[in-house]
Amino acid sequence: MRIGFVGMGIMGAPMALNLLRAGFDLTVYNRTASKCAPLMSAGAKQAESLPALAASSDIVITMVSDTPDVEAVLFGNGGLAEGLKPYSTFVDMSTIAPSAAVRFAARLRNRTVDYLDAPVSGGETGAKAAKLSIMAGGDRPVFERCLSLFQAMGTSIVHTGPTGSGLKTKLINQIVGALNLLGAAEGVRVCQAAGLDAATTLQAVSSGAAASWMLSNLGPKMASRDYSAGFSIRLQQKDLRLAMEFCRELGIDAPGVALVFELFTRALESGFGESGNQSLIRLWSA
Amino acid sequence: MRIGFVGMGIMGAPMALNLLRAGFDLTVYNRTASKCAPLMSAGAKQAESLPALAASSDIVITMVSDTPDVEAVLFGNGGLAEGLKPYSTFVDMSTIAPSAAVRFAARLRNRTVDYLDAPVSGGETGAKAAKLSIMAGGDRPVFERCLSLFQAMGTSIVHTGPTGSGLKTKLINQIVGALNLLGAAEGVRVCQAAGLDAATTLQAVSSGAAASWMLSNLGPKMASRDYSAGFSIRLQQKDLRLAMEFCRELGIDAPGVALVFELFTRALESGFGESGNQSLIRLWSA
Repeated sequence: MRIGFVGMGIMGAPMALNLLRAGFDLTVYNRTASKCAPLMSAGAKQAESLPALAASSDIVITMVSDTPDVEAVLFGNGGLAEGLKPYSTFVDMSTIAPSAAVRFAARLRNRTVDYLDAPVSGGETGAKAAKLSIMAGGDRPVFERCLSLFQAMGTSIVHTGPTGSGLKTKLINQIVGALNLLGAAEGVRVCQAAGLDAATTLQAVSSGAAASWMLSNLGPKMASRDYSAGFSIRLQQKDLRLAMEFCRELGIDAPGVALVFELFTRALESGFGESGNQSLIRLWSA
Repeated sequence: MRIGFVGMGIMGAPMALNLLRAGFDLTVYNRTASKCAPLMSAGAKQAESLPALAASSDIVITMVSDTPDVEAVLFGNGGLAEGLKPYSTFVDMSTIAPSAAVRFAARLRNRTVDYLDAPVSGGETGAKAAKLSIMAGGDRPVFERCLSLFQAMGTSIVHTGPTGSGLKTKLINQIVGALNLLGAAEGVRVCQAAGLDAATTLQAVSSGAAASWMLSNLGPKMASRDYSAGFSIRLQQKDLRLAMEFCRELGIDAPGVALVFELFTRALESGFGESGNQSLIRLWSA
């Protein structure tokens, strides 16, 4: 089984490396070709073009930023679609609009290419450690065909339903996570303004009904003004924009989603885009 | 060491019972005296009045609802203060305004009575199982004097700093928890509106960066429309009102706190006061 992988970014590169380590026959492609170098050192082949990568792969994976990126990589001039083989499988692991995944899947079905949306959670740390959460949407046989690949990249692997449902689950994940992050940020702000000891407060609050991954992992970073990026403000804001659009499509008024989207947009506009998402707290601290 | 306990409500009764089980000499009091019956069956004495309870106790504990309740029990006509012995200790485990605790402590210091604010988290389940989180503020020797009592009622016991800091920590706990709860509620709403399977979605979302106690414990209840009360909307709204007042005192503009306070107030006004706090989701579901 020959695997093609497009997108050697912060997430894609370590994910592809884990596929190599698991023994998969891997060909990679990146717009900026130099980013493929670490993968080639590790044994990957590099494709000269997207159609060439598609033509030599049984399963093609993309890991790029947003809906227009996936559309361009797939259907743009010199895109994957020009080379995808009948009876091959296309797996998009990017976080994009669920409705776009449904459209893309329909276009590929006309070429007898199977489609899976399989976005991930866990950030750069999870990608490097092969501990991602993978939420996959599509036909179950297609999911099962890709399972050994997912197992090389992640630990929590869930088939969520038909095409688009992986992305819908991912957007729910981002809604819940962003509100948890806001809770952690406001908790740390009050702690600091009240002159409480941050370590003691976080210890007390992390042990009961207020416990969250965000509080345990990003609370201490916020308290110590460590703004290093595990997951960036820019990508969190992008995911919340997709979540807002999705709520609008569903006809849901979600005041929490609206608030975190507004706050992360302010954080982006304040120049914190490439900082870690815990930098949300910088909206209020000097 | 003789212990007095005032307030045999949903929380106070099981907490007092755990003190009895640990072998403490316990006298109880409740405004509605009949609520003391289960404690008396278990071996507690019942005081005829608050001053009588205070006069026969080395440590007096109160577990009531709000700031005015503590003030009335302590300093009202026929209140505890009329009987509290010099060199005794008063421990308020209710969730009230931190600034009120500082005032009450000063008044008791004039009578040579030590004061500890020691609010709890964990709800009725935690109270019954003796697994509360206890956040105590006051002088360390006073805290240490009460430690064996706390160990009979809770598992996470943290000395947070001087008088009032237990309550400040508790309000931070409530801020973080309420925003996590909103995250869980909006996640479940989107899941249902999108027609996703709730169990699968919760499984996928609970395993990564969006994980929280609220999502794991109240997400499934929201999805199955189980509105039974572990912690009520009425008390959650009261705690968020205290948190709002505290943010105002600190000069903090906290948009997340403001939003959850508004939403829990709407839930209270919608008649969900005695339902579990997961009933927040009923604001949007039929």
